[in-house]
Amino acid sequence: MRLSRYFLPILRETPKEAEIASHRLMLRAGLLRQQAAGIYSWLPLGLRVLNKITTIVREEQNRSGAVELLMPTIQSAELWRESGRYDAYGKEMLRIRDRHDREMLYGPTNEEMITDIFRAYVRSYKDLPLNLYHLQWKFRDEIRPRFGTMRSREFLMKDAYSFDLDQEGARHSYNKMFVAYLRTFARLGLKSIPMRADTGPIGGDLSHEFIILAATGESEVFCHRDVLDTPIPPADTDFDDVAHLQSIVDKWTSVYAATSEMHDEAAFAAIPDDKKVSARGIEVGHIFYFGTKYSEPMKATVTGPDGHERPVHMGSYGIGPSRLVAAIIEASHDEAGIVWPDPVAPFDVALLNLKPGDSATDDACGHLYRALGLRGRDVLYDDRDERPGAKFATADLIGVPWQILVGPRSLSEGKVEVKRRATGERELLSIEDAVVRVAG
Amino acid sequence: MRLSRYFLPILRETPKEAEIASHRLMLRAGLLRQQAAGIYSWLPLGLRVLNKITTIVREEQNRSGAVELLMPTIQSAELWRESGRYDAYGKEMLRIRDRHDREMLYGPTNEEMITDIFRAYVRSYKDLPLNLYHLQWKFRDEIRPRFGTMRSREFLMKDAYSFDLDQEGARHSYNKMFVAYLRTFARLGLKSIPMRADTGPIGGDLSHEFIILAATGESEVFCHRDVLDTPIPPADTDFDDVAHLQSIVDKWTSVYAATSEMHDEAAFAAIPDDKKVSARGIEVGHIFYFGTKYSEPMKATVTGPDGHERPVHMGSYGIGPSRLVAAIIEASHDEAGIVWPDPVAPFDVALLNLKPGDSATDDACGHLYRALGLRGRDVLYDDRDERPGAKFATADLIGVPWQILVGPRSLSEGKVEVKRRATGERELLSIEDAVVRVAG
Repeated sequence: MRLSRYFLPILRETPKEAEIASHRLMLRAGLLRQQAAGIYSWLPLGLRVLNKITTIVREEQNRSGAVELLMPTIQSAELWRESGRYDAYGKEMLRIRDRHDREMLYGPTNEEMITDIFRAYVRSYKDLPLNLYHLQWKFRDEIRPRFGTMRSREFLMKDAYSFDLDQEGARHSYNKMFVAYLRTFARLGLKSIPMRADTGPIGGDLSHEFIILAATGESEVFCHRDVLDTPIPPADTDFDDVAHLQSIVDKWTSVYAATSEMHDEAAFAAIPDDKKVSARGIEVGHIFYFGTKYSEPMKATVTGPDGHERPVHMGSYGIGPSRLVAAIIEASHDEAGIVWPDPVAPFDVALLNLKPGDSATDDACGHLYRALGLRGRDVLYDDRDERPGAKFATADLIGVPWQILVGPRSLSEGKVEVKRRATGERELLSIEDAVVRVAG
Repeated sequence: MRLSRYFLPILRETPKEAEIASHRLMLRAGLLRQQAAGIYSWLPLGLRVLNKITTIVREEQNRSGAVELLMPTIQSAELWRESGRYDAYGKEMLRIRDRHDREMLYGPTNEEMITDIFRAYVRSYKDLPLNLYHLQWKFRDEIRPRFGTMRSREFLMKDAYSFDLDQEGARHSYNKMFVAYLRTFARLGLKSIPMRADTGPIGGDLSHEFIILAATGESEVFCHRDVLDTPIPPADTDFDDVAHLQSIVDKWTSVYAATSEMHDEAAFAAIPDDKKVSARGIEVGHIFYFGTKYSEPMKATVTGPDGHERPVHMGSYGIGPSRLVAAIIEASHDEAGIVWPDPVAPFDVALLNLKPGDSATDDACGHLYRALGLRGRDVLYDDRDERPGAKFATADLIGVPWQILVGPRSLSEGKVEVKRRATGERELLSIEDAVVRVAG
């Protein structure tokens, strides 16, 4: 992409309304624009990051056997009356009356609707297990939305819902998502820690939050250092192997890790001092098993092998990609701007033409742009008529992992400068070596 | 995908509420579920088609130089007061009050918001031309929603907005979208005809509808037969070549083509009888140039080369992917079910195991499933414990382009049957030949 043809509105000033680093950086780096309190437009660069995240989330959901569908944003109040949550949900639910004065709402979550879909079609245990997920915008009318997309009113959520004949099956479905989440966050370039969680208003008795560590995190977390080195289950993990999946979950959950709400001082005190980690974290995922909480009132039943009907056991599993963009920035930025982990970076390479109009730099940049494109790398080519200083600052601010600086001086020696954003390391390389360095 | 692990709820009975073929077939083939009047869930098979369509739409928008972003669904009423449309829009606008009693709405379209984004960042003609698009769910509170996703209340739209310094530039931006739309519909397997259109409530003085022919289409259309054979601009069309793009548009628009609203009896009468086409069609895209209609009241101005500020010239360009799914079915189905054009089919191949549990058919199916997967084909493998008749009916109903039937009888001669859904042609082939036949 040539920057001269792109839409990347960089802000020179730090927006006053932004209280945390990720919000400031998302506004400054042209990722985001606020349209109303807690409601944002995703500008092109931000959307690219969001899409990188959702692609990885989808791949890992699919790998675990979950099946994607898409539910609408607007729901009927009737469904929520069936579960009893219409009145219970409170002011966070955005309630709407349509032109016929029917009570509707903007979905804050989808337990009711997915249960409705399930009961419409599934009758037999033979069609289980089933895990259905979607990626859809949700709305929660927070009283005081702030922190940008970390806590916005309109936000993107991946929510998955599992259906099983009994608790034992549901436990396996839960474990599949547990493993899928470990893999998802690792692939996003994050170190996530599953922590036993309070089940809160969703109910049920088994729940984990996935927390990533970030100095600016919202909550205090406590864990044994070993949990940080526990290996991530590989891509070829057999999700049908019940015992193996349970052993992975057991391994992760046998090591102490808790948020302040669930913190056990005594258990933490028993950890050797050099293994104690007390830090700040950000919740990026949450999984629940809640049994028949919705299937019972909503009559989502299946016939078991014995011919008897029974309510299905359900779980729900959420990841917020729009929140993750902010969380990743909180975990990975410096004074100069964002430092994207490679897997979620909006572009792989920023190519800086330090003297546009000079035929040598133009040619070298053109060659690099094509060569990297052919190798499947997404390149943002800064071909604008701007001072080198402004280009350096923009490239650092937007945090693309690699920068290639093409100026007349080094080019006269047949070299370009390759800079790694995360470390600041610079190398003078020939054009061909630069391609290999960046594109492998 | 193994069907035993998928979620494909086929309906045996024809749903009574569905008045048109596409709606009936989308419900029966497990593509769609109604959640409220004019509000639908996209079941897994339907979502796959929707995604195939949006991928092609995106590729052609990007090819033409448009840049993707993503605006939120909920908008502030204030913005719409600036353009004067908040009061003018009427009851089709879903109006919402949030917990602080602020007036909001569910966006039915995005002219106001994109103009707001533009004016926030762009100051100079040097940043033009610019075309920004997004794919987002919209809501129009139709008084009597019907015909499934052909006219739903919550629907997906790709809307692009162009910004130019003057009318001449805007005309070129318009032509880019004109060509992008021709390419988009052709790639979707559709024959589309651009027809001069009334500009309606959006205003402006240059507009075309893109219509596809379907016997069950909603509107009457009239055209010269030659328009059906006009060549589609190739992938390497230079979108920066102003004169060339104008010549493509001129070629397409010089031949008579009109909907009944814009029909000119005299002009049609002048066409030789063997060239007259009078048929029914479905609108699948709509493009508008509307000058400074929004930029003037909303003060979206840029400084020209002469240093003077002036309002930008704008156009908007819409395609409804959720409507397209229905339109494609209207244009392509038979008694037995849907007949997907290859580029939008939810799967490439339906693989029917006619005797699951038989080791020979299981092995042959397993081999075919893997071999086709390795060649990049999406296979829906019907491994369910069902009668062959039910499998044939399902495969025909869901309309996947190729079927491979694997039964013990033909397999004893080392053969499987390959069926082309569109023509019903069948061939007995060896397993290896079947792979080549289907996967090229």
